[in-house]
Amino acid sequence: VVSKLPQTGTTIFTVMSALASELGAINLSQGFADYDCSPELIALVNKAMKEGHNQYAPMAGVMALRERIAEKTEKLYGAVYNPETEITITAGGTQAIFTAISAVIHPNDEVIIFEPAFDCYAPAIKLMGGVVKSLALEPPNYRIAWDMVKRLINQKTKMIILNSPHNPTATILHKEDIDELSALVKNQDILILSDEVYEHLIYDGETHHSMARYPDLQQRSFIVASFGKPFHATGWKVGYCMAPAYLMNEFRKIHQFLVFAVNTPIQYAIAEHLKNEENYLGLAEFFREKRDHFRKGLEQSRFKLLPCSGSYFQSVSYRAITDEKDADFSIRVAKEFGVASIPVSAFYSKGIDHHVLRFCFAKRQETLDKAVDRLIRV
Amino acid sequence: VVSKLPQTGTTIFTVMSALASELGAINLSQGFADYDCSPELIALVNKAMKEGHNQYAPMAGVMALRERIAEKTEKLYGAVYNPETEITITAGGTQAIFTAISAVIHPNDEVIIFEPAFDCYAPAIKLMGGVVKSLALEPPNYRIAWDMVKRLINQKTKMIILNSPHNPTATILHKEDIDELSALVKNQDILILSDEVYEHLIYDGETHHSMARYPDLQQRSFIVASFGKPFHATGWKVGYCMAPAYLMNEFRKIHQFLVFAVNTPIQYAIAEHLKNEENYLGLAEFFREKRDHFRKGLEQSRFKLLPCSGSYFQSVSYRAITDEKDADFSIRVAKEFGVASIPVSAFYSKGIDHHVLRFCFAKRQETLDKAVDRLIRV
Ligand SMILES: CSCCC(=O)C(=O)O
Ligand SMILES: CSCCC(=O)C(=O)O
Repeated sequence: VVSKLPQTGTTIFTVMSALASELGAINLSQGFADYDCSPELIALVNKAMKEGHNQYAPMAGVMALRERIAEKTEKLYGAVYNPETEITITAGGTQAIFTAISAVIHPNDEVIIFEPAFDCYAPAIKLMGGVVKSLALEPPNYRIAWDMVKRLINQKTKMIILNSPHNPTATILHKEDIDELSALVKNQDILILSDEVYEHLIYDGETHHSMARYPDLQQRSFIVASFGKPFHATGWKVGYCMAPAYLMNEFRKIHQFLVFAVNTPIQYAIAEHLKNEENYLGLAEFFREKRDHFRKGLEQSRFKLLPCSGSYFQSVSYRAITDEKDADFSIRVAKEFGVASIPVSAFYSKGIDHHVLRFCFAKRQETLDKAVDRLIRV
Repeated sequence: VVSKLPQTGTTIFTVMSALASELGAINLSQGFADYDCSPELIALVNKAMKEGHNQYAPMAGVMALRERIAEKTEKLYGAVYNPETEITITAGGTQAIFTAISAVIHPNDEVIIFEPAFDCYAPAIKLMGGVVKSLALEPPNYRIAWDMVKRLINQKTKMIILNSPHNPTATILHKEDIDELSALVKNQDILILSDEVYEHLIYDGETHHSMARYPDLQQRSFIVASFGKPFHATGWKVGYCMAPAYLMNEFRKIHQFLVFAVNTPIQYAIAEHLKNEENYLGLAEFFREKRDHFRKGLEQSRFKLLPCSGSYFQSVSYRAITDEKDADFSIRVAKEFGVASIPVSAFYSKGIDHHVLRFCFAKRQETLDKAVDRLIRV
């Protein structure tokens, strides 16, 4: 058969997690917790199953969950989404991203993405016959040069994909970025796909500039978020997409034939869990402690810490240590020092290599300590 | 925005289930159980969560589950699938179908489907730029006229989609169909997508002619199955796809960017549940009793029963009652008599209307009795 994605191999997450488990290395590569999610949350799933919530959820998701999401969004960002027509529960953030792209990208449409980019954007665009226009950002701050973005825009530009807090670089969009973006898309037929999976993981008093805060952007945006990441249960695969009705209508046309609906008992459980806002507002402090602890440890090493304003990833430059390529060095650190990471070059399409590795710090303190002990020896 | 699926509305399942709940009608429309799945299965999910299986499953699925599926398939159908490279766990049968189509259908490729057809095939084909070639089958037996299929085949034919036991008609493929199919695809570059979601629900001593039984067909087939349907937990959204490695490789390229992975604790639970083969071999008898009970009841009505050799659907012709269209009559039966069904015309693309309704009998005996009481009055 002729491949639809001839250049696509196995995702770096699968490769590195498999390597970590083969080697028995500490796995700071793929982003997931090595401690458990809250027992209350597990009990809520069990309760939902025992109460008989085991058949198809409505196609757009359990209404109670959509309502909690609408409330949370209005409270945090001021935007009013109608749970009936503007919010859909998905099988994780990844399915939401794939579906949004599928819903609006026609053959030859151009989509602007910023690299390093989470690895599911480009394949989905290509699968729909779209063209990826990528702009490479540079460490340590990975700021978007908006004048460069402007130069990429033309009649074929259909969408810009944003991701803040950003995976893998842990940077965030600032108010200046929002202003530039607003000016850029004004009077243009350009949609936004905003990957806000790490919305609650933001540090040092910074603000999460959700597209939901800015009506001119909100009305042209698919906003994607996740519950697996913030609630330490990446294996539950539940996230959501919010968009104005005219976009959500197209999203659901695909969603209904792509998965039809999402795991029911987990939706009921998360709807309950969201009732206590501390369950998400407390996340920033929880992960800030881990970040600070991990950074403090790494300061003793020869790695240079890059800024970390959000997400649960810490990137480091290893330029002072070696000239090896990211992929090679990442594998060597796993093999020789027993710590698995993600080579950030994997998130660039054009072989750009800034000598940066990404570590996930959503781990127990003892795991982070053990990893630091090993990384100090590098 | 320009719609990718301009002709697509909301699926008939969402429409009829919403109508049923609005009217308080007995819902025999969408296919799901109105009794609960086994408490043991719920306990197994709870156990898996409590044991900490709450993070990402491997992209292709929990290995224990893939191994149980390989064992079951070899035992039942004789085919040996390598769980490492040839089986992938999906977020339900629907995601498996969407992914298989996405993985191999290029723009202008033709796909042959038989109508009435489950409603997710055509949109997925069209979304990939493929062309749907549909052959309409006729009640009461809905037999495939293979000489007609032959006439549809040309250089552009890329895939044939089969579904046995068949939803909505409850018919099954026979050995003669397999022989015709084998002859037809011999020396041709034609793939098969075989939707075998109801594989265990087959009655009256009939055989399930899985593509896995026939090496010449197996080596060109994606076989899709589900656990939600047979295990009375349609809301858990877990199914799988099996295919030879050269096809599964392409499938996974899409799968990994479409959902990445599937709910972890449910995979562990089902892997355990499959250890006792009675849990799936006993299903045919369980549903046969419901079928017989429901059919017996309906014999008192003016509806004419169509054959039911598999699945948990019973179709009826209402030609003796009225000349109304399926969609209108289905709605009237829901409104005036309090029983929701699926109008089989919804599974035909070209407005074909055979005056047939589909009822789901995966319901408690008292539900079926109550529905029969009402349907007798029609
Ligand atoms: C979808 S698996 C990868 C998890 C993740 O988001 C990451 O590690 O960046
Ligand atoms: C995917 S929702 C519909 C369930 C089903 O398979 C059916 O009712 O035919």
